[in-house]
Amino acid sequence: MVRPATRAEILDEPRRSLPAQMRALVKHAPGPGLTLQTVPVPLLGAGEILVRVEAGGICGTDLHIYGWDEWAASRIHPPRIIGHEFCGTVAATPPDVTRVQVGDFIAGESHVACGVCQDCRGGREHICERLEILGVDRNGAFADYVAMPARNAWRLGRGSVPVEVAAVMDPLGNAVHTALATDLVGKSVAVIGCGPIGLMAIPVAQLAGAAFVGASDVRAERRVLARRVGADLVLDPAKDDVPGRLREATGRVGVDVVLEMSGSPAGIRDGLRALRSGGWMSQLGLPSRPVEIDLANEVIFKMAHIQGIFGRRIWQTWEQATALLGRGLDITPIITHRLPLEAFEEAFALLRSGSAGKVILSLNES
Amino acid sequence: MVRPATRAEILDEPRRSLPAQMRALVKHAPGPGLTLQTVPVPLLGAGEILVRVEAGGICGTDLHIYGWDEWAASRIHPPRIIGHEFCGTVAATPPDVTRVQVGDFIAGESHVACGVCQDCRGGREHICERLEILGVDRNGAFADYVAMPARNAWRLGRGSVPVEVAAVMDPLGNAVHTALATDLVGKSVAVIGCGPIGLMAIPVAQLAGAAFVGASDVRAERRVLARRVGADLVLDPAKDDVPGRLREATGRVGVDVVLEMSGSPAGIRDGLRALRSGGWMSQLGLPSRPVEIDLANEVIFKMAHIQGIFGRRIWQTWEQATALLGRGLDITPIITHRLPLEAFEEAFALLRSGSAGKVILSLNES
Amino acid sequence: MVRPATRAEILDEPRRSLPAQMRALVKHAPGPGLTLQTVPVPLLGAGEILVRVEAGGICGTDLHIYGWDEWAASRIHPPRIIGHEFCGTVAATPPDVTRVQVGDFIAGESHVACGVCQDCRGGREHICERLEILGVDRNGAFADYVAMPARNAWRLGRGSVPVEVAAVMDPLGNAVHTALATDLVGKSVAVIGCGPIGLMAIPVAQLAGAAFVGASDVRAERRVLARRVGADLVLDPAKDDVPGRLREATGRVGVDVVLEMSGSPAGIRDGLRALRSGGWMSQLGLPSRPVEIDLANEVIFKMAHIQGIFGRRIWQTWEQATALLGRGLDITPIITHRLPLEAFEEAFALLRSGSAGKVILSLNES
Amino acid sequence: MVRPATRAEILDEPRRSLPAQMRALVKHAPGPGLTLQTVPVPLLGAGEILVRVEAGGICGTDLHIYGWDEWAASRIHPPRIIGHEFCGTVAATPPDVTRVQVGDFIAGESHVACGVCQDCRGGREHICERLEILGVDRNGAFADYVAMPARNAWRLGRGSVPVEVAAVMDPLGNAVHTALATDLVGKSVAVIGCGPIGLMAIPVAQLAGAAFVGASDVRAERRVLARRVGADLVLDPAKDDVPGRLREATGRVGVDVVLEMSGSPAGIRDGLRALRSGGWMSQLGLPSRPVEIDLANEVIFKMAHIQGIFGRRIWQTWEQATALLGRGLDITPIITHRLPLEAFEEAFALLRSGSAGKVILSLNES
Repeated sequence: MVRPATRAEILDEPRRSLPAQMRALVKHAPGPGLTLQTVPVPLLGAGEILVRVEAGGICGTDLHIYGWDEWAASRIHPPRIIGHEFCGTVAATPPDVTRVQVGDFIAGESHVACGVCQDCRGGREHICERLEILGVDRNGAFADYVAMPARNAWRLGRGSVPVEVAAVMDPLGNAVHTALATDLVGKSVAVIGCGPIGLMAIPVAQLAGAAFVGASDVRAERRVLARRVGADLVLDPAKDDVPGRLREATGRVGVDVVLEMSGSPAGIRDGLRALRSGGWMSQLGLPSRPVEIDLANEVIFKMAHIQGIFGRRIWQTWEQATALLGRGLDITPIITHRLPLEAFEEAFALLRSGSAGKVILSLNES
Repeated sequence: MVRPATRAEILDEPRRSLPAQMRALVKHAPGPGLTLQTVPVPLLGAGEILVRVEAGGICGTDLHIYGWDEWAASRIHPPRIIGHEFCGTVAATPPDVTRVQVGDFIAGESHVACGVCQDCRGGREHICERLEILGVDRNGAFADYVAMPARNAWRLGRGSVPVEVAAVMDPLGNAVHTALATDLVGKSVAVIGCGPIGLMAIPVAQLAGAAFVGASDVRAERRVLARRVGADLVLDPAKDDVPGRLREATGRVGVDVVLEMSGSPAGIRDGLRALRSGGWMSQLGLPSRPVEIDLANEVIFKMAHIQGIFGRRIWQTWEQATALLGRGLDITPIITHRLPLEAFEEAFALLRSGSAGKVILSLNES
Repeated sequence: MVRPATRAEILDEPRRSLPAQMRALVKHAPGPGLTLQTVPVPLLGAGEILVRVEAGGICGTDLHIYGWDEWAASRIHPPRIIGHEFCGTVAATPPDVTRVQVGDFIAGESHVACGVCQDCRGGREHICERLEILGVDRNGAFADYVAMPARNAWRLGRGSVPVEVAAVMDPLGNAVHTALATDLVGKSVAVIGCGPIGLMAIPVAQLAGAAFVGASDVRAERRVLARRVGADLVLDPAKDDVPGRLREATGRVGVDVVLEMSGSPAGIRDGLRALRSGGWMSQLGLPSRPVEIDLANEVIFKMAHIQGIFGRRIWQTWEQATALLGRGLDITPIITHRLPLEAFEEAFALLRSGSAGKVILSLNES
Repeated sequence: MVRPATRAEILDEPRRSLPAQMRALVKHAPGPGLTLQTVPVPLLGAGEILVRVEAGGICGTDLHIYGWDEWAASRIHPPRIIGHEFCGTVAATPPDVTRVQVGDFIAGESHVACGVCQDCRGGREHICERLEILGVDRNGAFADYVAMPARNAWRLGRGSVPVEVAAVMDPLGNAVHTALATDLVGKSVAVIGCGPIGLMAIPVAQLAGAAFVGASDVRAERRVLARRVGADLVLDPAKDDVPGRLREATGRVGVDVVLEMSGSPAGIRDGLRALRSGGWMSQLGLPSRPVEIDLANEVIFKMAHIQGIFGRRIWQTWEQATALLGRGLDITPIITHRLPLEAFEEAFALLRSGSAGKVILSLNES
């Protein structure tokens, strides 16, 4: 009979060799900016483990939190340690956790599902009704240590994946979830919007058997990266007729599948116009307000499917991402910068400039 | 070796016993209105059969043609015999047609696919690139006889289905296609918009195993019909908070499936708001212009699926509709009026008033 | 922060009002037979709850354990309390369990998944690599109390389902899982083998929209029950040409779907022969040894699909079963006998005779 | 209005420039052997075209016809021109055929569907109830010209595919149909049996995103070819424990997908044993008699799927195969021999020896 740990054991036993204090990137009060602080190493709740963070990836969400926009002001309750894309080594586990062991190298799934609601019970944790996000709704991973549910850890063979790739398994999972939401073998695919997740989706689609992968982005730097990771055709919406060029490239029929990663009204409309009859659009890009859609011509007469995509399927997406990495998926060209935690201001500025791909914060790489 | 018919045979042989002239409801020139005329019985093209029409159903499309709105003016080239919902008896077949025989009782599939384009070759005739519609792009069935491709005839056992039901197998097919686009067993379903197709979808969803079917419409007459065909909850968007009431009825989670039949922006938004996370919306209702959709909150965070629906799957939808009728599907409460062809003005006026369900034109019932 | 319970709390707190001893039906030593004994009320392990059992259903597996056949001898380690189909009231929960509360009325999912293997992590707990079964691999529910994982409890509104139906939600789940493994709307279905699970599958298929449900069984009593729960055609394999009669009933094409519940070689072959081209067979019946199958003619040329079925999808199957019960699914005609626990010898004899449908043991009905 | 051709036109017009006689490989009478004869160029039936054959592939079926085994004796009605894998140039079309034009380069789909039965009407021509096969039930393509339904022609851009590859699009279609019957992205796959179709399935699975492709065959020559076309692990069932080695290669879990191409009882059992819980087996290999299958352990407890595979989906499979060839699929290593029609005895002997991959007969290559 498995015995749950007592409070005393949880607090004391695993931390004998752990420090009491750590570095953490903190939104300490409402308003713009972040602070690098020294804070206590977190305590563990039931079913939680402590992870020594090796590296983290900065996400667009982190920029919103830094800038303290309307969304951030309504959602974040300071003080909050931010950061939800990360990898690290398990540093402590309470006795009732058998899923991972101290020393395991893990990537973090940032969405913490309640495990109890109807969606969780139906195997749809990715749309849990009471979802919490690490670094948003609870303390995150831009710190030396993070306390997280053991069930949110994805074990990776140490050395099987570069640390900076392991640090971005979470957004890679978004790309995989979006791309593999429908069958791609022999299909023509358009990736609209080439931020890091859009860029990752390009080689994912190629490995999944796509016959053609087109891509579009307004930024020249991202178009260069799109070509580098294997897009067959790269378009500039400012100059090119994106739907027209995609139809031309596919014999005027239109693309079979659109992976919408831009969230911009223009990108969404380009994607729908480029879509063939009977086609599929996976919509991951988050528009900041409602978008006008020509349902009659672009969805109904075409019998198009639109599938909203959020998070990652637990753990199907992670299995797929890991298998594709094992098969040769290379996303390292997308990781353009790597800086120590202390240089976080520079890292955030790089990302804000739009000229970077993925920016990695390095913490405790072994 | 099957011998194709000669031109002379096609013209002469089958018509020995046929009249030379017939009644037909014709859009004879651009502008509002229709005329009941005497016109020649049509000649047959390759692969075509002649059908003696027994009854027809008036569709919203016919109202648009009557009223000569923008769409009609751009699409219809007079003179054109209208009418695309119908049933009748095969009156003549050329020698190369073996699929149906003279005397067969048939319902008509109004969408004429080219049979050659990539979608047709892939078994997706319902989204044929060169689709023509009977009564719209070629002469239709509000006439004593209609010439139609043999492959568009769906044979029914005579007497197995009432004539007025056989006359509306085409819109029933829309309802079946929309409802059965996803699995409904044990699911909660909302039908938004209770025109004839929406009304038909209610008992279809019930027979397909839905656990709950809610419905909404702005018109009181239609709400009465919705209750009569078995809706579990009927709402009036003018007074009721439709998404709120549907969420309440499903334990606050939202409905699993929305069948959007209204095509109105308010209806579409009600449907999306009522939809649960991971839910499915089949969109058949045709909006007259682009619609603003809150993709972030109603589609992406929810991981909702929107499927545009058009026409009927050839012949999967027809098999399903026929099987459901055999199983007890009763749509006769929806057929509220039945008038002779000569009373077409009255029939169109009834439909225009919004107080009718389905209105049938009776021609040559045996 | 949720605090896990201490050992002391788990042992002491919830049991203040619980008795120390209880009745239990026990396989006390290798060999045939079962004994009704007085044993201690069980202690709880981590994540476990204590349930006061109201009623249980006797399964074929229980007969094997009673009779001590080869399978039982290899799998059961006495002393073992048996019984895995049951319902009851939650009598005690440790502090770390929030999913259910004392007083909840629950049905039990008898398959205890490890939660850690790749299949569990992928949402496929029903094929967990380290599956344990209540009443087989750990103590079961033919007792006043059973200790079970909180996550194996399915809450039911008290009074929403009759106690004897709640007691057999586990085998009803097998029927639902088997029947709903493919779409049944407008389909012709054959149920081969009308033991309790086969019988339950008949009204499930009808409610799920099947156009025709045929059934076959060698026993006259079961054929009577098959008719009573709504089969459209009931066949006796000893006298009828089952595939021939089913083909005849479906226009010589064959049935769309076979639900194989007999596990007998003859039944499996009847099912495959009755299956139409492109058809689907769900195979739940467990053959006691390998079966000769004519793959060329019955599977390959027909492009048939065979799907092995085991257990219930967690919790999709339970949601479906509950929704169907709410929609009017009535399996009470299948429950032919109801006896107190003390009359277990009579209950087992009834089942062994083959003349009973489902036999219920009544324990602590409120 | 499209005018069908008269009989006179069909017979006369297109053949002005055609020879009256041609070479053909003929089963002229019951019994073993084939004869190269001079026969009349065939007449066209309704909807048929005449194709000048450029090259053909010899299939196992052709060996059976040559050897006149039980199956051949029961199915073939001499005199019969054999051959069903081929490509060529359209030489004549009657006026009613618009789908292809004289001069088009085409590959032939050898399965002639009736177009009228319920399966054909439902888009399932591959399981047509009245299927005829070119070179088996009607005259085939090992001749200078073949008359075939226009609807069985798959147009290829001339020069876009090597002639010997175009000649074997039919068996390549079998491989594609078998491999793509389920999603392969990130999956582990085992190909059991490395005849030409099994060999083709290996690179198809790799391009479709498989993470691992194992293969087994009893013949050393085929194992060499399996390695050459990209198998990750190649096993010899005479020496290797095939299921054991495959489980080992996939972390003891078993492979996700088995493509069974051997049709041998031992191969089928190896495949099922190698399959993981929840796995999928596509069964294309045709056993010559019923096979014993351990349904309980290998199908039911595992919840395995078995899908029989026959022919090719019209035209989905052809679209996929063409897209994969465009994407770089290379099956030329599998085509080991190429001989003129006159050397047919040598070609059949090579294939019979088991040491060849695919053997091509060259006829009128341009």
